[in-house]
Amino acid sequence: MTPTPRKNKPESSKTLELDEIAKLVKGELAGDPHIRIKGVAGIKDAQEGDITFLSNSKYLPFLEQTKASAVIVSGDIQASHKALIKTAVPSQAFTQIVDWFLGPSEEGQAPGIHPTAVIDKNVIVGSGARIGAHAVVEENTTIGKNTSIGANTVIGRHVTLGQNVKIYPLVSIRERTQIGSNVIIHSGAVIGSDGFGYETVDGRHLKIPQVGFVLIEDDVEIGANVCVDRGRFQKTWIKKGTKIDNLVQIAHNVVIGENSLVVSQAGISGSTELGKNNIIAGQAGLVGHLTLGDNVVVCARSGVTKSLPDGSVVLGEPARPISEQKRILAAIARLPEIVKKLMNKNS
Amino acid sequence: MTPTPRKNKPESSKTLELDEIAKLVKGELAGDPHIRIKGVAGIKDAQEGDITFLSNSKYLPFLEQTKASAVIVSGDIQASHKALIKTAVPSQAFTQIVDWFLGPSEEGQAPGIHPTAVIDKNVIVGSGARIGAHAVVEENTTIGKNTSIGANTVIGRHVTLGQNVKIYPLVSIRERTQIGSNVIIHSGAVIGSDGFGYETVDGRHLKIPQVGFVLIEDDVEIGANVCVDRGRFQKTWIKKGTKIDNLVQIAHNVVIGENSLVVSQAGISGSTELGKNNIIAGQAGLVGHLTLGDNVVVCARSGVTKSLPDGSVVLGEPARPISEQKRILAAIARLPEIVKKLMNKNS
Amino acid sequence: MTPTPRKNKPESSKTLELDEIAKLVKGELAGDPHIRIKGVAGIKDAQEGDITFLSNSKYLPFLEQTKASAVIVSGDIQASHKALIKTAVPSQAFTQIVDWFLGPSEEGQAPGIHPTAVIDKNVIVGSGARIGAHAVVEENTTIGKNTSIGANTVIGRHVTLGQNVKIYPLVSIRERTQIGSNVIIHSGAVIGSDGFGYETVDGRHLKIPQVGFVLIEDDVEIGANVCVDRGRFQKTWIKKGTKIDNLVQIAHNVVIGENSLVVSQAGISGSTELGKNNIIAGQAGLVGHLTLGDNVVVCARSGVTKSLPDGSVVLGEPARPISEQKRILAAIARLPEIVKKLMNKNS
Repeated sequence: MTPTPRKNKPESSKTLELDEIAKLVKGELAGDPHIRIKGVAGIKDAQEGDITFLSNSKYLPFLEQTKASAVIVSGDIQASHKALIKTAVPSQAFTQIVDWFLGPSEEGQAPGIHPTAVIDKNVIVGSGARIGAHAVVEENTTIGKNTSIGANTVIGRHVTLGQNVKIYPLVSIRERTQIGSNVIIHSGAVIGSDGFGYETVDGRHLKIPQVGFVLIEDDVEIGANVCVDRGRFQKTWIKKGTKIDNLVQIAHNVVIGENSLVVSQAGISGSTELGKNNIIAGQAGLVGHLTLGDNVVVCARSGVTKSLPDGSVVLGEPARPISEQKRILAAIARLPEIVKKLMNKNS
Repeated sequence: MTPTPRKNKPESSKTLELDEIAKLVKGELAGDPHIRIKGVAGIKDAQEGDITFLSNSKYLPFLEQTKASAVIVSGDIQASHKALIKTAVPSQAFTQIVDWFLGPSEEGQAPGIHPTAVIDKNVIVGSGARIGAHAVVEENTTIGKNTSIGANTVIGRHVTLGQNVKIYPLVSIRERTQIGSNVIIHSGAVIGSDGFGYETVDGRHLKIPQVGFVLIEDDVEIGANVCVDRGRFQKTWIKKGTKIDNLVQIAHNVVIGENSLVVSQAGISGSTELGKNNIIAGQAGLVGHLTLGDNVVVCARSGVTKSLPDGSVVLGEPARPISEQKRILAAIARLPEIVKKLMNKNS
Repeated sequence: MTPTPRKNKPESSKTLELDEIAKLVKGELAGDPHIRIKGVAGIKDAQEGDITFLSNSKYLPFLEQTKASAVIVSGDIQASHKALIKTAVPSQAFTQIVDWFLGPSEEGQAPGIHPTAVIDKNVIVGSGARIGAHAVVEENTTIGKNTSIGANTVIGRHVTLGQNVKIYPLVSIRERTQIGSNVIIHSGAVIGSDGFGYETVDGRHLKIPQVGFVLIEDDVEIGANVCVDRGRFQKTWIKKGTKIDNLVQIAHNVVIGENSLVVSQAGISGSTELGKNNIIAGQAGLVGHLTLGDNVVVCARSGVTKSLPDGSVVLGEPARPISEQKRILAAIARLPEIVKKLMNKNS
């Protein structure tokens, strides 16, 4: 028997009137200030009493259809019969409201070391830190203040974790990894595994020692089941503010610049270096030993085989500047018709 | 030293005569009823005394070559010098025989809670349930009858698991996930991790709270190292009877209809909704915010960028109706020849 | 606060003079024999006092730029103002030096069974073996001499592990898996999960029992978060000396010949059999039921849909012999120009 689907939205017994919400997010209210809001939801699932928001223009048709009692929008959205709160960044405002209703999405778990956790010698645990059941922390590792380590996670020797780090259950962090503050690492991620490096002699693949480490700077988020290999001799380096989605492969010696996004199932081969604010979209692949500039966008499922200057936007297999690739795709779409014409002429 | 390869088939000391097997599967026997069957094997590996089956027509040439003493076939297979048992669905009949010889593929492990498991307060454990060594079950979680939780698996707070659920070792199920009955989840899967959602302000990526949950209905199977992200505010929803292969990515707010198949390394981006009986083949990718109808087939390694109506069969990058894409691929194959001809004309 | 990046190279207090190093690796020294070497590093990160090596010709420009005090090169590298040690395989020589300076990259951990490990009945543990904290080893499993099992790893029933095997933390090895000697398996790998096999009857997918096993021969390395499914009735088989990178999918009944390489995020579908010395590059995909010969190269991101003879080198979607595919890619690149010309003619 399938469980009775619970309500689509997390529950809360708190309510707010719409003018209180407008004040909370410093937004401009258009509508009845006394509408009472009982919960938060996405625009498609919202019910009467909910507040929702409109951020992605694809959802614009839902503005009229949503059952929500109020919608947070950006300033340029036209009037509707719905109560609206206008604000610069609707999803940020909505986040504030969600936090008000629900508290932070992870209810705070009490700090402390679970009695079943195994903490090796010379481990330093900062105040307010939390180490979950059956977690293992090996020797000479330092855990910063208010950092949380999930159940059954394993942290190797000589690791440094900064403050307010959140490591979910079942993460593996190999020895000598260095992690900054405010980093989030999701379940199943493996940080600091050996790179894939062999010297082939007479057809046999001899393992090249992988004795480097991984450096993850502040404010990085790493998705579930991601792999980040250690550097061969030096470091694999993920810089401040970069966010990595699930099932991504980061090979040895890769450098990813600040505030980049690497989307699910993308792979970055060994020694490739990315600049700042890059976007590597889903299932894209980059060969090794490339250099990408700043503000590069690699579109989904593209295969990058060459280094790219600042501001490049590339698509395709092999990846090309997007306008060029779009011309090629347009020509390919017409190819059957063209071939047919040529055949008729030649007949 | 490589271990001596053990026999290719699981061992059993039980034997059956062929007419007993025919009765067991309600099949029609063509051959000596007294042939004694000692084991089960695939058609290529079977030895004398084994019974095997023929289901995939690619294996038809093996019907005459197999060393098996008998073969289960469908009614339309022509005679052979082999003993045959004819039945409507050979692989189902074979499954019955495997079960007779070996018992269920997972030998029943005794129910009960391993003394090293950590069970938090307010956890309800149904009768006949089994919780493995070092498993962790957090507070307010409900585990149905005869459900089994593997060693070192971590189940978060406020989770519901139905009856006869099989969770293998080292699975992570985050808080508030809801799982129906007869669900199987393989090792390394991560259910309910945060979706990949940020609001970019002045080049910095601010995390959008991911406070929804995952709903997995009855009879779903989820492969090893799969990631299913929680909904942002509402649910990510995998409906009854759907089967997901290893290393698949299911992003936040995705809905997958009943009895669909998602093959290894495919990825489905955020908020995309699939109908019933879809097949998403291996390494395919779907962008976000699409709607796919029922009975849609996305061929292997295709990249879907548009919504698709019922019954669509699509292939390619970008994915197109298969007949259209096949015309394009045929034209592409002739492209070098065509270019050469054009060059000669123009010269 | 981001941690102060530690020095890029692992530390060591040992030093060697250059002529001692030349002797150690049996190389030919060109330069001052008394230069004192204090550490090892990659060519781009090396500092004064380090020795490095040059193996990949892409790094040739760094030979003059590196701050390293000496560089190990192959015999055909031209003179430089740097001290050089000439040897046949520079990276192998360098490995010897790394080992001298640092010891093996994994500092030996003391053998023994951690008191929190759960070892079931009838488990045989060889001398010198190590079983980490919270590891679980189920009944009737055999662990060879000097084999190491990481923290929180789970080994199922009736498993055989050879000698000098290294299993990292959080690996799942399902029942009946057989593993040779000198095998390395990285964190998050899942060995022996059920294959993806269903018989669809009236739109419902009925699970076909997956009762085979996985055989991994000597000297195999398996990356982080790899999935190797068990055979359906027989075995999934990875032969001696094969190396598999992170996040690879190996489906049921696959056979991979000796000394092959399977690079990150590649996927091999069910029952496909590969010969020796194959290279399956990153993000490639092979459909099921194929046979590949020896010395086959599947280039990155290629989709293989047909069996391939010995020595094939294939590229593309669908994969074709590389020379053929390169002609097609060259023609595709010119396609917009060709279409334009044709249009002008026809106008």
